Amino acid sequence: MLFVWRGSVLPRILARLGFFFGLACAVVALYETLGPLPFRLEPAPLALLGVTLAIFLGFRNSTSYERFWEGRKLWGSLLIVSRSFMRQALTLPTPAPEREERLALCGLLRALAVTLNHQLRGTPLNAGVLPAAVWERVRDAHYKPARIVQLLAEWLTEQRRRGRLGDMLAASLDDNLNRLSEIIGGCERIASTPIPYVYGVMLHRTVYLYSLLLPFALAGSLGWTTPLITVFISYTFIALDAVTEELEDPFGTEPNDLPLDAMTRTIERAVLELAGEPVPPALIPGDDCVLT
Amino acid sequence: MLFVWRGSVLPRILARLGFFFGLACAVVALYETLGPLPFRLEPAPLALLGVTLAIFLGFRNSTSYERFWEGRKLWGSLLIVSRSFMRQALTLPTPAPEREERLALCGLLRALAVTLNHQLRGTPLNAGVLPAAVWERVRDAHYKPARIVQLLAEWLTEQRRRGRLGDMLAASLDDNLNRLSEIIGGCERIASTPIPYVYGVMLHRTVYLYSLLLPFALAGSLGWTTPLITVFISYTFIALDAVTEELEDPFGTEPNDLPLDAMTRTIERAVLELAGEPVPPALIPGDDCVLT
Amino acid sequence: MLFVWRGSVLPRILARLGFFFGLACAVVALYETLGPLPFRLEPAPLALLGVTLAIFLGFRNSTSYERFWEGRKLWGSLLIVSRSFMRQALTLPTPAPEREERLALCGLLRALAVTLNHQLRGTPLNAGVLPAAVWERVRDAHYKPARIVQLLAEWLTEQRRRGRLGDMLAASLDDNLNRLSEIIGGCERIASTPIPYVYGVMLHRTVYLYSLLLPFALAGSLGWTTPLITVFISYTFIALDAVTEELEDPFGTEPNDLPLDAMTRTIERAVLELAGEPVPPALIPGDDCVLT
Amino acid sequence: MLFVWRGSVLPRILARLGFFFGLACAVVALYETLGPLPFRLEPAPLALLGVTLAIFLGFRNSTSYERFWEGRKLWGSLLIVSRSFMRQALTLPTPAPEREERLALCGLLRALAVTLNHQLRGTPLNAGVLPAAVWERVRDAHYKPARIVQLLAEWLTEQRRRGRLGDMLAASLDDNLNRLSEIIGGCERIASTPIPYVYGVMLHRTVYLYSLLLPFALAGSLGWTTPLITVFISYTFIALDAVTEELEDPFGTEPNDLPLDAMTRTIERAVLELAGEPVPPALIPGDDCVLT
Amino acid sequence: MLFVWRGSVLPRILARLGFFFGLACAVVALYETLGPLPFRLEPAPLALLGVTLAIFLGFRNSTSYERFWEGRKLWGSLLIVSRSFMRQALTLPTPAPEREERLALCGLLRALAVTLNHQLRGTPLNAGVLPAAVWERVRDAHYKPARIVQLLAEWLTEQRRRGRLGDMLAASLDDNLNRLSEIIGGCERIASTPIPYVYGVMLHRTVYLYSLLLPFALAGSLGWTTPLITVFISYTFIALDAVTEELEDPFGTEPNDLPLDAMTRTIERAVLELAGEPVPPALIPGDDCVLT
Repeated sequence: MLFVWRGSVLPRILARLGFFFGLACAVVALYETLGPLPFRLEPAPLALLGVTLAIFLGFRNSTSYERFWEGRKLWGSLLIVSRSFMRQALTLPTPAPEREERLALCGLLRALAVTLNHQLRGTPLNAGVLPAAVWERVRDAHYKPARIVQLLAEWLTEQRRRGRLGDMLAASLDDNLNRLSEIIGGCERIASTPIPYVYGVMLHRTVYLYSLLLPFALAGSLGWTTPLITVFISYTFIALDAVTEELEDPFGTEPNDLPLDAMTRTIERAVLELAGEPVPPALIPGDDCVLT
Repeated sequence: MLFVWRGSVLPRILARLGFFFGLACAVVALYETLGPLPFRLEPAPLALLGVTLAIFLGFRNSTSYERFWEGRKLWGSLLIVSRSFMRQALTLPTPAPEREERLALCGLLRALAVTLNHQLRGTPLNAGVLPAAVWERVRDAHYKPARIVQLLAEWLTEQRRRGRLGDMLAASLDDNLNRLSEIIGGCERIASTPIPYVYGVMLHRTVYLYSLLLPFALAGSLGWTTPLITVFISYTFIALDAVTEELEDPFGTEPNDLPLDAMTRTIERAVLELAGEPVPPALIPGDDCVLT
Repeated sequence: MLFVWRGSVLPRILARLGFFFGLACAVVALYETLGPLPFRLEPAPLALLGVTLAIFLGFRNSTSYERFWEGRKLWGSLLIVSRSFMRQALTLPTPAPEREERLALCGLLRALAVTLNHQLRGTPLNAGVLPAAVWERVRDAHYKPARIVQLLAEWLTEQRRRGRLGDMLAASLDDNLNRLSEIIGGCERIASTPIPYVYGVMLHRTVYLYSLLLPFALAGSLGWTTPLITVFISYTFIALDAVTEELEDPFGTEPNDLPLDAMTRTIERAVLELAGEPVPPALIPGDDCVLT
Repeated sequence: MLFVWRGSVLPRILARLGFFFGLACAVVALYETLGPLPFRLEPAPLALLGVTLAIFLGFRNSTSYERFWEGRKLWGSLLIVSRSFMRQALTLPTPAPEREERLALCGLLRALAVTLNHQLRGTPLNAGVLPAAVWERVRDAHYKPARIVQLLAEWLTEQRRRGRLGDMLAASLDDNLNRLSEIIGGCERIASTPIPYVYGVMLHRTVYLYSLLLPFALAGSLGWTTPLITVFISYTFIALDAVTEELEDPFGTEPNDLPLDAMTRTIERAVLELAGEPVPPALIPGDDCVLT
Repeated sequence: MLFVWRGSVLPRILARLGFFFGLACAVVALYETLGPLPFRLEPAPLALLGVTLAIFLGFRNSTSYERFWEGRKLWGSLLIVSRSFMRQALTLPTPAPEREERLALCGLLRALAVTLNHQLRGTPLNAGVLPAAVWERVRDAHYKPARIVQLLAEWLTEQRRRGRLGDMLAASLDDNLNRLSEIIGGCERIASTPIPYVYGVMLHRTVYLYSLLLPFALAGSLGWTTPLITVFISYTFIALDAVTEELEDPFGTEPNDLPLDAMTRTIERAVLELAGEPVPPALIPGDDCVLT
């Protein structure tokens, strides 16, 4: 579960920076040939925008990262609780489950990660991806991961019915089902509730208008240094804006989003290893695997 | 449960921005015709206000968003705990509840969301919205959602009395009733305790006085560029102020508030699906449904 | 439990603002008649204070509000746990408690809120406020709310002794007594540990010295605009300082503090309603009731 | 448990402020007699340091306060859990413990607070401070508070062995022992892990170099106003630095650190009162008791 | 478990500061000999970068420290839960475990810390480090710490099978195994998910370009004071950047990272002391032990 962060947003914003560079050159050329423009501007008024820019950018940046990090924590918890449930399922019933049953539980826990992955990304789920017995039960469900938690609960009821598990230990396993519900609900919350668009709209307007005004504010005192400084300042604003846009929806498929497929595989590996089964190779989210 | 954020607060603040544009034009016209005004001002003194403006705006913005997000989390937890309670109610009693009982439980969990929705918005609740048996029990209650948790507890007692549920498993279900109480109490807390008004009052005074002073501070050095810059700076302050006002009360019915009706429907769908019943269509909070 | 925030701190700080207005007028008059003063100052050096002012004010503001909000949350939890304990007390014992016993429990939960209220405010508690049976047991206690939790625990032991409650369900009720202990301890912590005074001292010195220096820094360039700007800037600093002072101790009796009496009444109403008893009217903290 | 904050750090930093005052006077005198110095400086370059100064000071301030507040919360929890354990020990076993046993438990809970206090401060513990029976068991232990939790666990085992307590209720008491472990471990974490020194080093270097440069930056434009402004600005930086240094280690014995002795006494009083025993007087951390 | 923070990052960044000093000298020399350079710059445009620099640096600093502190908390919890599990293992079974069994449990809890340490640092684990019986079971595992939790669960099952432990108390021990899973998963999350590289990239570009531009912005007004001020400002930016890079990965082996070996030893000491066994000496992370 090693992340390979794409290092740069530069390629995607290069065209915009080029535009501001060209604009700054044009403004300076006009200034040098015609003298002071009728559109007068200086750095001081732009500095007054610092307060709101800091709030817009700082808020959006920290909120986006928190969403990303909460998404990461939720998938980390999915691994943790899957492991804990598996450990309990292997050691608490008397007698311990047979191999077939262990494999069925591994299949259900993997199916939980797979269906959550697809639900969060809005991608269709094909029949072959899940074991036939599981697929049969979840294909018509609107909330497939919740249905799989229900299947785990039914396995639990079956254990109690057969006398393999007393009420007390069953309650311990059931408690971990509650936690799985919380993880699913937490992911749904992030995926269904973006940051209010109005922040993005205000931020875009402010950042681009600010970048447009920069050359006019600087040309008078900096001359041909203006294009360099304009692009430098614009870069910091526009790059930050671009990064936060990627992180905001951690369950997307952009370069800096969470590698849900690799994490699903990790969960599969973890529960199979606990069950004493051979494990498939890890997925390394790399440049050629596009983290899907 | 997909949010459709209204993108812009611009229409609502356009008149105010127009006023500041006109004021700035008047100030510049005076300045150009009469020369320096007796009311002298420069950008530097306004910059000294940056500290308090940043604190007022930043505090109000982050506090409002936290309230919005906590409200969202509480309703997310309502979905999670409703699902968990339903799962337990379906799998823990022996024998499992009959269809009629399952439907009654779905009705109670839906009624919990409905009555909480109405309590938070202060809207009246009509007889027909809830099943008659539930309505009978809650119509006189001041705290209707708490009464419904009580009805769920009575169902639990009934299960124990009939010997369908041992104390241990009953305690697991009862634990989720505690969580429902916490969710209800958390929503009541947000709805009944606004951010101290004095912050809003201080913020309004500061933002509008600041915007009034801007043209005087800029006219001397910027000339006819003044109206554009004035409106740009005012826009960032006033728009941020307007957004935070909307988010502050997440249970209201303004465009950026939480779509409680759609979320109530999601809860209804989720518990019905778990109970194996047909589910009603989801509500998509859209432009024509005004999220109510 | 609807808060009525007092909107403004202006009346209380008006005299101080008046002083700074007068000072600014005097400085400008001197400046206009005598020319540049020997005490030279400009806006730039004052701007260097922005960093520490932002930290002092921002820290104090957010810390005060967090204390206020944590106090609010604790009293919200007191309502939640009182309800949960009442629900359990009504539905878990077999047979369910008689009316007299229910009323006694309501009385104990109300007494818990009442004694906590008085302990936090340091106000004396009179005999008549609590039921005689409760008063008898708590009047000599130094930590009255903790004693009441003990009385609830004794009721619980009695239920077990009579065979109305098995160990498992008793443990569930006992768990909510742990939570009541946590709420009491949390309130005591806030009430007994103010923000280190040194922050307030540093903040006051800085804010008032800063306001004193303002007219000297502005008079040279702004002339008779100085008094207006001085008062405007001072207002933002002094008003923020005044608000945070009020919020810092949320259990006090200043206008913006928590309406503990109204919240105590809400708890009483909530548990009586659960017990099926008539409820007293809500207290609305309003202008004429001074939230006491 | 009332804190008496020492209000001021001024006496401790007075000498340093005096130095900067003298330096500023010398710089102005040189400037007035020799004209512009070869070491040229202006406010604008110093203003560029605002960003890093704000981060250094703001980070250190909020981190120190969080450590202080977490330490306070942990000792608050020690009181809460001691009370909860005592309440359970008094009401859950059948028959309830005799007076001698109650006093032994009070002694153990007090010993827990006492040994934690000494471990955190690194002060030696004398034989007479603890009851002889307890001292015998903990004097050789490296982790004395953990040993005392073990002694409480042994008491619990004894109760089960004698049939006074079923497994379920024993598990409730054992749960509070887990919480005591968490409190001890949390305090050890804060005491053993200071804020990385490098922050303090960077902050000191920056604050003092900044203060050294101030007179040179101001002398040119402010003349003899320079010493006053230099000392004012330096004061805000140096005082903030001094406060955060005190708060950083909340378990020390400096004026603004936590009054562990008074809090230990509060815990003793609280458990004795629950056990129905006479309580010793509270310790008021005051000017003559130096909070030790 | 006493940290010895390395105080300074200065040695590592000295070469870079030397470069900027040399550059500043060259720029001033050019300026003094040739007069104003064609590459014109002033402090005001650089000041406009303050907003984004504050966000980049502030965000990276607080996020890195939070990662460090969360890592510290997780290892603190590992100590806490190891102690709690040991306490339960010693006091809850009837009869209490023999010495051999106690030592085996100590060995497993130590092995958990050792294997987690190696997994987080990516260092190979040699056969001799763990007891042979444990090594046999974990050497082929991909997730060694999770395997050890499984071994603890098997011990628990064995206790139940032999009738030493009822279901209720077994569930209490099992609960602490869930917590161990959470700690392992939390550490894996931090180790496998760095802060998005793009923040580091943007920050580096901005900080170094900013430092390159500084001499050009200052030379005009400051003359030969420029190199000193340039180095001072650069130092604050570059040193902060260097510190955050160290703290970001708390499980590395750089000077300011967590002393995992010393903390592993502390855990070993704590559980051995609880088991009544002699304890090995503590490891003091010092200059000669490089905290490995």
